Amino acid sequence: MCRSCFNPSVQVTVDHKIEIKENDVPQLKFGEVLIHPRATGICGSDIHLWKHGQIGELKVLGNLVLGHEASGDIIDVAEDVTNVKIGDKVAIEPQIPCNTCFLCRQGDYNLCQDVKFIGVYPNSGSMQRYLVHDARYVFKLPENMTYTQGALVEPLSVAYHGVERADLKLGHGVMIAGAGPIGLATLLLVNAAGCAPIVITDLSEGRLKFAKELVPNVIAHKIDVKLTPQETGIQIRKLFGPKEDDAPSRVLECTGVESSVVTCSYTVRRSGILMIIGVGKEVFNNFPFMQLSFAEIDVKFSNRYHDSWPTIINMISSGLLQVDKLITHRFPLERADEAIELAGDPRKGSIKVIVEDRNGTL
Amino acid sequence: MCRSCFNPSVQVTVDHKIEIKENDVPQLKFGEVLIHPRATGICGSDIHLWKHGQIGELKVLGNLVLGHEASGDIIDVAEDVTNVKIGDKVAIEPQIPCNTCFLCRQGDYNLCQDVKFIGVYPNSGSMQRYLVHDARYVFKLPENMTYTQGALVEPLSVAYHGVERADLKLGHGVMIAGAGPIGLATLLLVNAAGCAPIVITDLSEGRLKFAKELVPNVIAHKIDVKLTPQETGIQIRKLFGPKEDDAPSRVLECTGVESSVVTCSYTVRRSGILMIIGVGKEVFNNFPFMQLSFAEIDVKFSNRYHDSWPTIINMISSGLLQVDKLITHRFPLERADEAIELAGDPRKGSIKVIVEDRNGTL
Amino acid sequence: MCRSCFNPSVQVTVDHKIEIKENDVPQLKFGEVLIHPRATGICGSDIHLWKHGQIGELKVLGNLVLGHEASGDIIDVAEDVTNVKIGDKVAIEPQIPCNTCFLCRQGDYNLCQDVKFIGVYPNSGSMQRYLVHDARYVFKLPENMTYTQGALVEPLSVAYHGVERADLKLGHGVMIAGAGPIGLATLLLVNAAGCAPIVITDLSEGRLKFAKELVPNVIAHKIDVKLTPQETGIQIRKLFGPKEDDAPSRVLECTGVESSVVTCSYTVRRSGILMIIGVGKEVFNNFPFMQLSFAEIDVKFSNRYHDSWPTIINMISSGLLQVDKLITHRFPLERADEAIELAGDPRKGSIKVIVEDRNGTL
Amino acid sequence: MCRSCFNPSVQVTVDHKIEIKENDVPQLKFGEVLIHPRATGICGSDIHLWKHGQIGELKVLGNLVLGHEASGDIIDVAEDVTNVKIGDKVAIEPQIPCNTCFLCRQGDYNLCQDVKFIGVYPNSGSMQRYLVHDARYVFKLPENMTYTQGALVEPLSVAYHGVERADLKLGHGVMIAGAGPIGLATLLLVNAAGCAPIVITDLSEGRLKFAKELVPNVIAHKIDVKLTPQETGIQIRKLFGPKEDDAPSRVLECTGVESSVVTCSYTVRRSGILMIIGVGKEVFNNFPFMQLSFAEIDVKFSNRYHDSWPTIINMISSGLLQVDKLITHRFPLERADEAIELAGDPRKGSIKVIVEDRNGTL
Repeated sequence: MCRSCFNPSVQVTVDHKIEIKENDVPQLKFGEVLIHPRATGICGSDIHLWKHGQIGELKVLGNLVLGHEASGDIIDVAEDVTNVKIGDKVAIEPQIPCNTCFLCRQGDYNLCQDVKFIGVYPNSGSMQRYLVHDARYVFKLPENMTYTQGALVEPLSVAYHGVERADLKLGHGVMIAGAGPIGLATLLLVNAAGCAPIVITDLSEGRLKFAKELVPNVIAHKIDVKLTPQETGIQIRKLFGPKEDDAPSRVLECTGVESSVVTCSYTVRRSGILMIIGVGKEVFNNFPFMQLSFAEIDVKFSNRYHDSWPTIINMISSGLLQVDKLITHRFPLERADEAIELAGDPRKGSIKVIVEDRNGTL
Repeated sequence: MCRSCFNPSVQVTVDHKIEIKENDVPQLKFGEVLIHPRATGICGSDIHLWKHGQIGELKVLGNLVLGHEASGDIIDVAEDVTNVKIGDKVAIEPQIPCNTCFLCRQGDYNLCQDVKFIGVYPNSGSMQRYLVHDARYVFKLPENMTYTQGALVEPLSVAYHGVERADLKLGHGVMIAGAGPIGLATLLLVNAAGCAPIVITDLSEGRLKFAKELVPNVIAHKIDVKLTPQETGIQIRKLFGPKEDDAPSRVLECTGVESSVVTCSYTVRRSGILMIIGVGKEVFNNFPFMQLSFAEIDVKFSNRYHDSWPTIINMISSGLLQVDKLITHRFPLERADEAIELAGDPRKGSIKVIVEDRNGTL
Repeated sequence: MCRSCFNPSVQVTVDHKIEIKENDVPQLKFGEVLIHPRATGICGSDIHLWKHGQIGELKVLGNLVLGHEASGDIIDVAEDVTNVKIGDKVAIEPQIPCNTCFLCRQGDYNLCQDVKFIGVYPNSGSMQRYLVHDARYVFKLPENMTYTQGALVEPLSVAYHGVERADLKLGHGVMIAGAGPIGLATLLLVNAAGCAPIVITDLSEGRLKFAKELVPNVIAHKIDVKLTPQETGIQIRKLFGPKEDDAPSRVLECTGVESSVVTCSYTVRRSGILMIIGVGKEVFNNFPFMQLSFAEIDVKFSNRYHDSWPTIINMISSGLLQVDKLITHRFPLERADEAIELAGDPRKGSIKVIVEDRNGTL
Repeated sequence: MCRSCFNPSVQVTVDHKIEIKENDVPQLKFGEVLIHPRATGICGSDIHLWKHGQIGELKVLGNLVLGHEASGDIIDVAEDVTNVKIGDKVAIEPQIPCNTCFLCRQGDYNLCQDVKFIGVYPNSGSMQRYLVHDARYVFKLPENMTYTQGALVEPLSVAYHGVERADLKLGHGVMIAGAGPIGLATLLLVNAAGCAPIVITDLSEGRLKFAKELVPNVIAHKIDVKLTPQETGIQIRKLFGPKEDDAPSRVLECTGVESSVVTCSYTVRRSGILMIIGVGKEVFNNFPFMQLSFAEIDVKFSNRYHDSWPTIINMISSGLLQVDKLITHRFPLERADEAIELAGDPRKGSIKVIVEDRNGTL
């Protein structure tokens, strides 16, 4: 086996550098598989870990191999593994929960406090040639799916978990705040779910144009920063129609920005749900308490995902989700540093940048 | 006003005849509107009332004007009516609940025991030139919708209520039993809701062909009557895939036939929902109790609809539902007897027959 | 009939006075009943309307008869009324919704934007000898219930609606923030619902002592104002046990105070529900966004009630709720001004003050 | 260690005998604990396995150690076990699911198709001196709980799972069909949950008397076998009150008998839930399809339990559930054959028979 081979990996250092260097490959234990990652998407959190060295309490305390939006080939399996075999093309669910705590038992394993998440210190991520992972969290891809599509299952899962928790109503209007990668993934899902009209908002005309190309029937609305959040909420409601009944019963917030959350609070219909998928600041001000209280709007939050890989794979494979358009740039593993720099530069207008290891199956 | 005018109507008699004859037009009371019905769909229950003189406890005890799938023009309104005005094109929700009982208060007004339902004795239906109705149960149609589409809101609502109660999971597989009008309406909605794969079953190849034309990506499966329901269930599961996980988490039964309900019980995935939309016999035998019990399959039922007109109108108007193909035949009001006879003859292969009053707005 | 009789009423004026004076009695219309109110509880909102002349957008623009927590005797009914008759002892649901809008139709009639609420300008409340009300919103009391208990159905309904929306889990721990009238009503309901342990918090030792007398097995915890909300949350969690699993899966906030909402956010268990029943400021700061987001805690709000009178009456009548202890003071209608002043003075330590019209049935 | 010691066990043979004989003790593997069971309740399924040699597809193909309602002492732990330690008094959850399939992942691990259940062939149960079990499925008991109470957590969990899935409404009426061990456990839980009135039915006056002693405010109703199920349903409804509104919104069926299921179908209120906890025949006839369909009554099923041990332990320990009265007989392990014979003889009127190993902690 290739465990003694050269294992190039993309590492972020404690002093905020990106280095491409050798990484060890651990021995397979019971229940594990060895994967040759073939495609990894770059996430905003990768950029954040690189530039700021931490996200909340998750800190980069030593060199860290990045990458958690990934797919690849199975190149070895522990003897007790039965769900995949050598040669399978798989998508990787990057979280390995404890399977013991009450959250795991009740099905909310995304909330497990002992989760091991790859690409977060000290767990090596998928931007390397060899990755060891728990077999229960790899999922065989059908013939008609590409590695890139396999890597996109992760951001689609983030959106899917929010959409599922939002309990969308078939045939109702939905507003999505934010046309970045998660907002656009959410747009694809909401559109697949039979909602109309769908309004998506952003500050960037480029992103709104992108959204419109992705889902032509969406109403793309540019936020006017001169308006207050409440005024913006009223303005967005008019896009749905003149009556309270017309306002969206579900609003999906995908930016995590305070003013956007407030805008959304004034947009959602009485008795509706404000689903917050975006990750934001530790603490918010200007939270429109009475508006939400009088209207009995449930404010719900979404943290990662659970049980979503088979469903998203099914949706892509069956044609329900056209995800390829989300990819704006591709780089080989050897030039991952350029990829990360591009993804981290908002002026470049990238949506999803993919790092590919173009070596064939090993 | 035209209340003294000739009001032709399509009446079923206690001795099972269809007669087209004059009917009185009641005086408008507070909260009521006078409608000139323009299109009425013929429902299986209309046929049943005609041929059998009753459905369960609902009996034809005197001449009855048929019709409850209807749209038309508002031609007069009581002085206190504000939601519609003369000249509006409307779809008609045919049930008028009491608005007082606990079921109405909690939002389940379809289950109100004091409901007044048009086209069921003694309440005149819409197959007449003038219909008086409660203004709260008429809904203005947008410019881009036809009278026929307005009439189809009712059968789509029957399907929608079942689909809503079934709590469909985005991206999951669904089985629909029965490709008659309600099964096909259900198919349109399930397809709009982002489910895949969708399997629809029937005994009739003609109906399955129709389903396939309506939704090309559906898997249309002809039931083999030589198999037991359990064998059929296993056969249908194979269409979804080899694993328990692949089996449909939701199964929508649209025939009300005992053997079909049993088949569905063996098809739905563990922890799934069997939603029974079809209306069947008073009592069932061969109900697979242990299968449902071990697998914790919820068996739910659906009776009419509530709060669905605005949503279905929105779905048709926005293009989410392509309903025109459901119409196989059209007749003028004057030849409604021929329409009913055709709709009641299974050899004619009709799906939805529309009776139109082709006189312009009066 | 007594419509020409003297109708003493308790009115708040635009210049913040309480006056006891004559009020007109309207003619009964279809569907209405004439009630002789016998007991009315004084609510914090009555005090607020008196002292501040408004609550949010609800303003006292002229003399207003107060009172919405009420019971009484039916002394006349319109000819079409069937649910109650002259001589019945009834509890009064003080809201009369439109029964037409989408919120009414879907069962959320508490959110109706055209609701008529008694005791809020310009609708006369129950602190008068004669009150006209919609018959659908009066509920006959069983023999074994007193007028005072009938008046308490309203504040119990406020708590019940919050408790229902919080989806309590049988056998789980619950925290209640605030031991005022609504917090104590909530405590009675949570205790009846089989939750344990129950922790109730307040700043006032007197109120906590009251809570402990009401429900002896409750853990009454005095908030230490020197701690931060986060520290307080950690401190309260320890009362439930050492593990995340032990923390309360449901927290019911009954004060509406910003620091209390923040404390509650740090107390509720991962994947739990923070139910906000208390009414607070227009806008909140220091809202712990990331805490709620990482832990997927649903923040829900509660506004009044719907469908609760029959249930609360059943609970009191059957002995599930021992509500009499909530009453700390009673005054005759003629001394309602003293009652209101006492209820509005926090130093007096009242919980629920009842105004009684001690004249027998008229 | 005592693994070479004498391990007396209670075994059922393929030819339907009960034998008390030596059993091997397996070596502890990672994640396992060695338990000295101290109390085991006898379940109807134990009797069924003994008398009929099978329950559905679960067959006794060789000698089987019975027992799955159990508690005991931890006497050894594998080195990686952290949740319990030697000397702990524990209750045993008898099912060990696969933790890999979609049902385990989504929290429905009771439905796992690869579950290992103790006391079902070929897995040895708790009626022996030494039991090896997965550490994740043992739960430490608080000081104030007895071994017998620990053994009762299992039947209480069966009832709890049904009660949870039934989504009880606080303050609503509930009917329970059957006053056997599961019906009585259900009664304790429904009573703790704040429902009223509660009606329990049975054919046996002795059992109804037992129910009345357990929960004095219950209405105990003897089924009149001369009435049809529909007539019985109408009769039971009258115990709740004269109106549809009074009928129980939740009915919990704990017998699995066909006529009882039909009776329950006619008792539950429109839009209510019929929760079937009882296990019955493979197939049912006379299933009242139209009654359930017109009234939109959800028929739900319950199979074992998940996530319930901590909750039931909390409820017993805190005094919410008074379970000791359920115990009618106790036998030492050495006389388990007498215990099983008594429990299997309906004329003896036992409710819960406990087999105790009265040796102190080993």
